[in-house]
Amino acid sequence: MQQIKVTLSDSEIPRQWYNIQADLKKPLDPPLHPGTGQPLGPQDLTPIFPMALIEQEMSPKQFWEIPDEVLQVYALWRPTPLQRALRLEKALGTPARIYFKNESVSPAGSHKPNTAVPQAYYNHLAGIKRIATETGAGQWGSAMSLATNFFGIKCTVYMVRVSYDQKPYRKSMITTWGAEIYPSPSEHTNAGRAALAADPDTPGSLGLAISEAVEDAATHDDTNYSLGSVLNHVCMHQTVIGEETLKQLKVIGEKADVVIGCIGGGSNFAGLAFPFLREKMAGMEVKVVAVEPASCPTVTKGVYAYDFGDTAHMAPIIKMHTLGHTFIPPGIHAGGLRYHGMAPLVSRLTEDGLIEPIAVPQMECFESGVLFARTEGIVPAPESTHAIRGAVEEALKAKEEGKEKVIVFNLSGHGHFDMSAYDAYFAGQLSNYHYPESMVQAALKNLPQVG
Amino acid sequence: MQQIKVTLSDSEIPRQWYNIQADLKKPLDPPLHPGTGQPLGPQDLTPIFPMALIEQEMSPKQFWEIPDEVLQVYALWRPTPLQRALRLEKALGTPARIYFKNESVSPAGSHKPNTAVPQAYYNHLAGIKRIATETGAGQWGSAMSLATNFFGIKCTVYMVRVSYDQKPYRKSMITTWGAEIYPSPSEHTNAGRAALAADPDTPGSLGLAISEAVEDAATHDDTNYSLGSVLNHVCMHQTVIGEETLKQLKVIGEKADVVIGCIGGGSNFAGLAFPFLREKMAGMEVKVVAVEPASCPTVTKGVYAYDFGDTAHMAPIIKMHTLGHTFIPPGIHAGGLRYHGMAPLVSRLTEDGLIEPIAVPQMECFESGVLFARTEGIVPAPESTHAIRGAVEEALKAKEEGKEKVIVFNLSGHGHFDMSAYDAYFAGQLSNYHYPESMVQAALKNLPQVG
Repeated sequence: MQQIKVTLSDSEIPRQWYNIQADLKKPLDPPLHPGTGQPLGPQDLTPIFPMALIEQEMSPKQFWEIPDEVLQVYALWRPTPLQRALRLEKALGTPARIYFKNESVSPAGSHKPNTAVPQAYYNHLAGIKRIATETGAGQWGSAMSLATNFFGIKCTVYMVRVSYDQKPYRKSMITTWGAEIYPSPSEHTNAGRAALAADPDTPGSLGLAISEAVEDAATHDDTNYSLGSVLNHVCMHQTVIGEETLKQLKVIGEKADVVIGCIGGGSNFAGLAFPFLREKMAGMEVKVVAVEPASCPTVTKGVYAYDFGDTAHMAPIIKMHTLGHTFIPPGIHAGGLRYHGMAPLVSRLTEDGLIEPIAVPQMECFESGVLFARTEGIVPAPESTHAIRGAVEEALKAKEEGKEKVIVFNLSGHGHFDMSAYDAYFAGQLSNYHYPESMVQAALKNLPQVG
Repeated sequence: MQQIKVTLSDSEIPRQWYNIQADLKKPLDPPLHPGTGQPLGPQDLTPIFPMALIEQEMSPKQFWEIPDEVLQVYALWRPTPLQRALRLEKALGTPARIYFKNESVSPAGSHKPNTAVPQAYYNHLAGIKRIATETGAGQWGSAMSLATNFFGIKCTVYMVRVSYDQKPYRKSMITTWGAEIYPSPSEHTNAGRAALAADPDTPGSLGLAISEAVEDAATHDDTNYSLGSVLNHVCMHQTVIGEETLKQLKVIGEKADVVIGCIGGGSNFAGLAFPFLREKMAGMEVKVVAVEPASCPTVTKGVYAYDFGDTAHMAPIIKMHTLGHTFIPPGIHAGGLRYHGMAPLVSRLTEDGLIEPIAVPQMECFESGVLFARTEGIVPAPESTHAIRGAVEEALKAKEEGKEKVIVFNLSGHGHFDMSAYDAYFAGQLSNYHYPESMVQAALKNLPQVG
């Protein structure tokens, strides 16, 4: 019998998060105040974040100790397995060895709890009694409702109405974990009431849900806001993925030639890739590939510029790859990848030539996702099929070249709550959206004149 | 940080299944032919089962080597973690130490693939090209469609129509794994056509779906039938669960005082409990508890007698605990526990005084299931909440007695495809069904006059 999984014990969970800000050639451009356009200081963020997270967001410190209380929760499902995709290799006829980091084993079904748990912990420590957040497809809302349980605080989730109606079982899961959940726009905030007054039948949007959650947090003393991707501290919390993977590869004496993750806001990719990028900067030869949807190609087709993080101009202005904050991405099923911007750290590292971004079409992703399900068993989340597609393309390249490459990708989550997407795929109802170039060109005219 | 999980490596997957038939005080009463009432020989089963499985079904051999090809598939998710439920303990304020074996980590989300994989393998080895099977709630149909992929054979699933309509995402998952799936009754069999002719709007039943799958297998040379519980070889394949658990407890120097599983057909319970019962027969002190639904109390209220396994009298007559094959259990959400009979091995071992059966009401199960989700993270399948309830009751007893008991239960699966049950629970739409005693009394008058 051939070894399939590299499993580590509880005691081998990494004890530190890695902050790649420490190793940048020059510091990140500062976030700007959405109202004044002036650089943001820590104090500007205190109405919605605890100081511990603000420090992590802005600090150049290279490693941060993971608190025991967080490790104790991580241990419910971490370390996650690093798994050899032997059957996928055989199906592709590739000489490459393909490994995937299986983040789908968390109770919420994705990598998201890696940051939801420390965010809940630091808020609890700061005396916060409730966290308000938004969710689009539902992965992040699930993760935060799970995480708040462990520290005895409450959670309010604003879920984009169209998803709330289309994915009722995400809502059920969030309720089972004890959070309150409202379809957004809701009657609970000024932003929501205004949107409902303008159009009672609006399907909602992620931008609007963010506005509702931020308003809820800013207007309640005991409540903070929480974000599931993009920000520096979120990317840092996710680095447990890559640190474990480095250990696991060492255990079996393998060296990654290619490391792959999908990018929407950037956090699952950052989690796997940043520790490898540290090693790359120290001399390791490794190609690091970020895979985005061809219909929302933020990094491959966007500009690197200051832009708003949300449509309502409530979030900070940040320097990142963007398709313009007024751009509305096509309705692909990988809802977690439908974002106009990108984590500033992922953007900068791409600009610095450390990351190779590629864009792949929806149909090819589902094709590779189904192949993965039938060879390796796990039905992947639509987002994760982008990473799978990236790995398949690298494996086929290795086959052409006759090279024994080692390919490692992040399986960021399972698709148990996305089965309607597979139904649509098998029913022949999906297609490859064209890249809406003219819409992007129009949106790019709306960038703020700052920086 | 306190250790939460006991993880084993791929190389520690058990190499043998344990056949408890070898250790019975006297052999099981033979299965009888449903037509003649005479004892069945191996040849009677060859139209629908491969000889390798018939041998395992009827043999007193104590240990069976697990083939390498099966181990290689098990390694996709096995060994499964044995996990300490620290937070659940704290919530209950119990001095007991509670452990659960986490079978929810398989790609299908339950213990079912443990037997689906060897069944697919032995059929493939016998030259069979397709497996026909039935599914009620969908767990078994998922597992078999997953398993057939690994050996290049096809799968046809007859899914009880009411579940087919109510749980569309189980159907999606089965389709994603490449199986064909029909709502039962279907137009594909005589049994199905007859049922549709009698009532075009029938919701179907598990008994009828069995009849369709058996007919499909019996009338196609290249096709066999497959069952997901009850039978001896099915229980045997599941013993990897208990063998791993024994190893894992040994690693951390723990000794189980109480071992708990839920019972419907009996297979997940058998999988955890039989290896412990072997040790118990050899002198280990351990209490073994089987938990069934109060509204379908096969073992606690049924009779131990020969009865048909299905409503259509196509399956063998077996000696077991039964509420009568004409009894239709109330519509509890733990669909996998709605069966009138019980695995003959579980029944016999209960008669022999080795197993203590208890019955628990639906509402208490959901209450404990939600407590489990909020403390340990995983949202359990409704079936598994029965085992959780059993563990909670033992833990509260330990608290009363002030005893540091070690409680081990089987978390047979997650509830990702059962979220509508949780919705109904939170909406106040569920209740405790009364035990329908008069219906059972009526059904028990229909037992076959044999044996």
